[in-house]
Amino acid sequence: MASNNLTAVLYGVEDLRLENQEIPEIKDDEVLIEMDCVGICGSDVHYLVHGRIGDFILKDKMIIGHESSGVVRKLGKNVKNLQVNDRVAIEPGVACRLCDYCKTGKYNLCPEMKFCATPPYDGNLRKFYAHAADFCFKLPDHVTMEEAALLEPLSVGVHACRRAQVSLGDNLLILGSGPIGLVTLICAKEMGASKVIITDLLQSRLDVAKELGADYTLLVNKNDTEKELVKKIHNLLGNVAPNKSIDCSGFEATNRLGLAATASGGCFVIVGCGPPEVKLELMSALTCEVDIRGVFRYANDYQAALALVATGKVNVKKLITHHFDITETLDAFDTSRYGKENAIKVMIHCQPRNKNNPKPF
Amino acid sequence: MASNNLTAVLYGVEDLRLENQEIPEIKDDEVLIEMDCVGICGSDVHYLVHGRIGDFILKDKMIIGHESSGVVRKLGKNVKNLQVNDRVAIEPGVACRLCDYCKTGKYNLCPEMKFCATPPYDGNLRKFYAHAADFCFKLPDHVTMEEAALLEPLSVGVHACRRAQVSLGDNLLILGSGPIGLVTLICAKEMGASKVIITDLLQSRLDVAKELGADYTLLVNKNDTEKELVKKIHNLLGNVAPNKSIDCSGFEATNRLGLAATASGGCFVIVGCGPPEVKLELMSALTCEVDIRGVFRYANDYQAALALVATGKVNVKKLITHHFDITETLDAFDTSRYGKENAIKVMIHCQPRNKNNPKPF
Amino acid sequence: MASNNLTAVLYGVEDLRLENQEIPEIKDDEVLIEMDCVGICGSDVHYLVHGRIGDFILKDKMIIGHESSGVVRKLGKNVKNLQVNDRVAIEPGVACRLCDYCKTGKYNLCPEMKFCATPPYDGNLRKFYAHAADFCFKLPDHVTMEEAALLEPLSVGVHACRRAQVSLGDNLLILGSGPIGLVTLICAKEMGASKVIITDLLQSRLDVAKELGADYTLLVNKNDTEKELVKKIHNLLGNVAPNKSIDCSGFEATNRLGLAATASGGCFVIVGCGPPEVKLELMSALTCEVDIRGVFRYANDYQAALALVATGKVNVKKLITHHFDITETLDAFDTSRYGKENAIKVMIHCQPRNKNNPKPF
Amino acid sequence: MASNNLTAVLYGVEDLRLENQEIPEIKDDEVLIEMDCVGICGSDVHYLVHGRIGDFILKDKMIIGHESSGVVRKLGKNVKNLQVNDRVAIEPGVACRLCDYCKTGKYNLCPEMKFCATPPYDGNLRKFYAHAADFCFKLPDHVTMEEAALLEPLSVGVHACRRAQVSLGDNLLILGSGPIGLVTLICAKEMGASKVIITDLLQSRLDVAKELGADYTLLVNKNDTEKELVKKIHNLLGNVAPNKSIDCSGFEATNRLGLAATASGGCFVIVGCGPPEVKLELMSALTCEVDIRGVFRYANDYQAALALVATGKVNVKKLITHHFDITETLDAFDTSRYGKENAIKVMIHCQPRNKNNPKPF
Repeated sequence: MASNNLTAVLYGVEDLRLENQEIPEIKDDEVLIEMDCVGICGSDVHYLVHGRIGDFILKDKMIIGHESSGVVRKLGKNVKNLQVNDRVAIEPGVACRLCDYCKTGKYNLCPEMKFCATPPYDGNLRKFYAHAADFCFKLPDHVTMEEAALLEPLSVGVHACRRAQVSLGDNLLILGSGPIGLVTLICAKEMGASKVIITDLLQSRLDVAKELGADYTLLVNKNDTEKELVKKIHNLLGNVAPNKSIDCSGFEATNRLGLAATASGGCFVIVGCGPPEVKLELMSALTCEVDIRGVFRYANDYQAALALVATGKVNVKKLITHHFDITETLDAFDTSRYGKENAIKVMIHCQPRNKNNPKPF
Repeated sequence: MASNNLTAVLYGVEDLRLENQEIPEIKDDEVLIEMDCVGICGSDVHYLVHGRIGDFILKDKMIIGHESSGVVRKLGKNVKNLQVNDRVAIEPGVACRLCDYCKTGKYNLCPEMKFCATPPYDGNLRKFYAHAADFCFKLPDHVTMEEAALLEPLSVGVHACRRAQVSLGDNLLILGSGPIGLVTLICAKEMGASKVIITDLLQSRLDVAKELGADYTLLVNKNDTEKELVKKIHNLLGNVAPNKSIDCSGFEATNRLGLAATASGGCFVIVGCGPPEVKLELMSALTCEVDIRGVFRYANDYQAALALVATGKVNVKKLITHHFDITETLDAFDTSRYGKENAIKVMIHCQPRNKNNPKPF
Repeated sequence: MASNNLTAVLYGVEDLRLENQEIPEIKDDEVLIEMDCVGICGSDVHYLVHGRIGDFILKDKMIIGHESSGVVRKLGKNVKNLQVNDRVAIEPGVACRLCDYCKTGKYNLCPEMKFCATPPYDGNLRKFYAHAADFCFKLPDHVTMEEAALLEPLSVGVHACRRAQVSLGDNLLILGSGPIGLVTLICAKEMGASKVIITDLLQSRLDVAKELGADYTLLVNKNDTEKELVKKIHNLLGNVAPNKSIDCSGFEATNRLGLAATASGGCFVIVGCGPPEVKLELMSALTCEVDIRGVFRYANDYQAALALVATGKVNVKKLITHHFDITETLDAFDTSRYGKENAIKVMIHCQPRNKNNPKPF
Repeated sequence: MASNNLTAVLYGVEDLRLENQEIPEIKDDEVLIEMDCVGICGSDVHYLVHGRIGDFILKDKMIIGHESSGVVRKLGKNVKNLQVNDRVAIEPGVACRLCDYCKTGKYNLCPEMKFCATPPYDGNLRKFYAHAADFCFKLPDHVTMEEAALLEPLSVGVHACRRAQVSLGDNLLILGSGPIGLVTLICAKEMGASKVIITDLLQSRLDVAKELGADYTLLVNKNDTEKELVKKIHNLLGNVAPNKSIDCSGFEATNRLGLAATASGGCFVIVGCGPPEVKLELMSALTCEVDIRGVFRYANDYQAALALVATGKVNVKKLITHHFDITETLDAFDTSRYGKENAIKVMIHCQPRNKNNPKPF
């Protein structure tokens, strides 16, 4: 019985397997969670295909999955913030709590961070999982398990917008309409951005962006020059430059485009990965005092992401294009990996779908 | 002809008259505006009734009015940002541009500020008015003249929310549902406040607040104790304290209530006037590091207020309960002053109503 | 042997006793410290005399002392940041590490804070004491044990100046030249304040302030009116108002004076305790957008305080006027309590003086 | 007589001439200044040698010089902040006062900025010069005319440190010990930086840096690898990375080094010019959330620079290595251009030296 814990284990490049593992013991400050939803992230696919992201290298087998939600089934003896049967969203990184980064509120930069499905730490695409109670967020009844799993990418969007200090009156450029571009769009509109223009190479993604509130969309052709694109962006905004830009694509070309398009005194935020080296027109950006800021995961952003979903104002459901049972994990990864059927976000259910949703998703 | 400029002049306490004045000459950096809409503000009524607000004392006759919009009819020779026939919102204060406050972006604190209808400076409830071109904001076609006049109180709301650094995830308490409380509510929701609770002594105002997006309303009874009110506020928010509060009432009782209700590490912003001295439980606020911040008018907030209205997401029309022609100015002031027929915002038209609106308000 | 731990225990009002206690066991993340220096703080005296400070009430006996330093003698098994025999300054509050305040870098506001010698938590005026390793800061060789104990009040000064955002070019008013006023002065000068004016009722304290770098001192007479004092302050600064003020006295009169003296757009920071209710001229401050900010202890400030002392630029020794052995604890408290011989800071030595200082203090 | 105004005019590349011009008329908000000291800046030399900096191209003859001080000889009729015979430092850029950058306190980004000796605007290396009164800063008696001229580069240092938010406890890396590196060092120490490490290719400059307060100096050899340099920097700081870095050199190599050396969550500020394109290891910086920020001149920094010099705590005289009379302007430029005799800052006197200094420099 204790080993009745179906688990998705990445044994190496192109070697993802489902297997039964033991149900973990919990520590005093942890809860045992019966997992419900786990979304597939680009990084999960990256580890499957490449076995590494930057300096994080898969050296041993590792459980995959980190965009997740579940139901609390057992409490560690020190846990006060949760009850058994609470439905929770799981913030997947647990920091050391002792270092200066942790103490100053930037725990995403903690060098001792244990983050789900980042080697060497296991993820939580499995039936049962133990997690620090203070990194679990109790859901209101009307928030579904799928929405709770989406809080993970949504928190990246919150963090990106907070790094950009998005606020009322901003003209914002978002580069890329993948999942991170779309959650950033959602957050930016909620934080008061007046006009958001978003780009992509695929019209299908721009259509979703439009539904999610983009004021303008720009279909980019690989042959467009940077100069032409800057001009188009400024034109769409009424002949003004965006005062803030967020690159959610991670190419040298988008890094350069964002830097060139942003207004003097503005900021250019870059989310996630790109090539290790890029060639930039740095000098013109510097003399315009356009700041460049990175985004690494999130810290203290889950609460705002949950608050945003809980208001009911945003319809994050549009992001989820596919659903799979945990037993279909390999198919789910294939769908996400190859972008089958215009896949945006693929959700894996560790429980029968909607079992833990008071009303269906 | 040059004197065909009907003008509302406050000659002294309880002495408001309409008279014809000369059409003003414009300076090189000014535009001549054919006025359209002018809203009545509490301060206008205050000067009519009391002849002073704090240290600003009516010593000579003064043209009234400062919440306004109009159409540009003539350009000073240095004006580049506007064209003849541009429809504009008028930011009513022109600062010295030379002092440290002006140079550091806090021109609302400029000691040489010339602000419409604040003694000794004339306001703009009249047919023709000259104003610094850079303090006029061109309207998009779909923004009406009434909405443009409302940008003035809306800018107070923007400034108050910016002083409170309202953002995603905030639980916000707003004390008072008069015009300033309501515009603050509108801005706070647009800036991402998750839950806004607003109070008032009148249910009719709370009903408007609810329509404008308040998550919770609290009808205050004069007999309620501070302790009871704090408890009710925390209960409505799900047993948490608001992390930010904004007092738009200006009574000692609301100053005290806001301070007592706000969470540790939060901030309490107070807009506008109140009694010269108040007794506060300061020590408990200080040991909780609850900041107290004032709001004086606004600076660099008109653009965001215009952007907010231009998105079409907020329906500021609900704020305007009454319309009068400039020839009915005395009736308009009576309606505003005595809150007749649940008056919130009373609008005076210097032109036939909707003359300058491409589509009717 | 295990009970060879001389300890200063406050049994109740006016009942401070020395007794032997057991040497405490350490937890995995703690270190055992052989205590060296413990300074006497105003709050220690307050508990001795009144048995309470605000809502913190002495209900049971409590070990006194929290401004302290010592030598690490034993390591918990998880401790990585320290070695046996490290000389350390001890930050006396250990927060829960789990709540939102802890996670956002404001752990001083943690509701579960365990702070030395704040009821019901024991302090560390004793021979041996166990403390969380991450709240111990290793000293460079040239920093003495007395200086390390002074980091506690110095951290209050750092926190106050950070709350006031003291920086280059500031004109700063500090009200009160007691220990907190003096450490605030030291920090403010190090953070670049251009002109600091400091007040007190005692010339002897102002003389120390002058030695520590005050640009101007103002001896306040109890008969001076607020208006006169404001005028004197502005005169000393060359007919300008201080753009920032910090009240380190905590009287209604200084609260009012600071608020009245501060320039528009500035801030007024109030450190520490005062009467529960104060009557303030709030309206004029609000319309000048002078912020009021409290200071509660400190968070993430010990490092900067240590860095400041380690530079050798400031001579904090001037603050220590008296030295006592732990066996003379009652005399030490008398000296501090009654301000005997112009006492500023009284230091108690749990070890023979200078035993752990590579060079004498 | 009216043309008795000896003036240094740059007619084109390698064509700098002295000639007599008319004494300019002043506008209502201007003062006429009898110039005293004018320092030579790298940009002055650059225009002489290359005729352009980036997009600023010398198309017509232009008066050179912008680091300057003088004595007020005539007042425009609206001038209130100055008197005839006031000794003043001259902030050399006058912005439009009308655009959003001007109104929000970032006037250095004003697109209509008229900046001395930046084409097409004339500089002030001449006997008489008219300037906006509000951009002139009255000197205390003990501040010399040479120090006043140095406020210009010092303001760049202030702005750089403010962009980096230098404060108490910072470990700061400064790349380059030229004039800008040295003024940045001075400002950083005054703003509380705990440890400053500064680099250069020349030991003579590092020696001056040491005298000016650098805690550590690092002589860079052109053959050192980036990795080695990063290691040396971290070693000097006690095996920690600087939390902030400021590049005052402007090479691709120093851009890369600063980015690689800075701690997670820190910031990397780049002052001034460099190659139009640089290749950067951007991804590792982004995932460490190291911000990159440019510095363009300064805004609202002159006051702090003056306050800093006026305290007398810093000895900026060390920066001035050579003095010339205005009639020797060509020699002065040669000395600066070729770094003759370890030249750092070369000062040109439009008046007999020390004529306007109450005590000699």
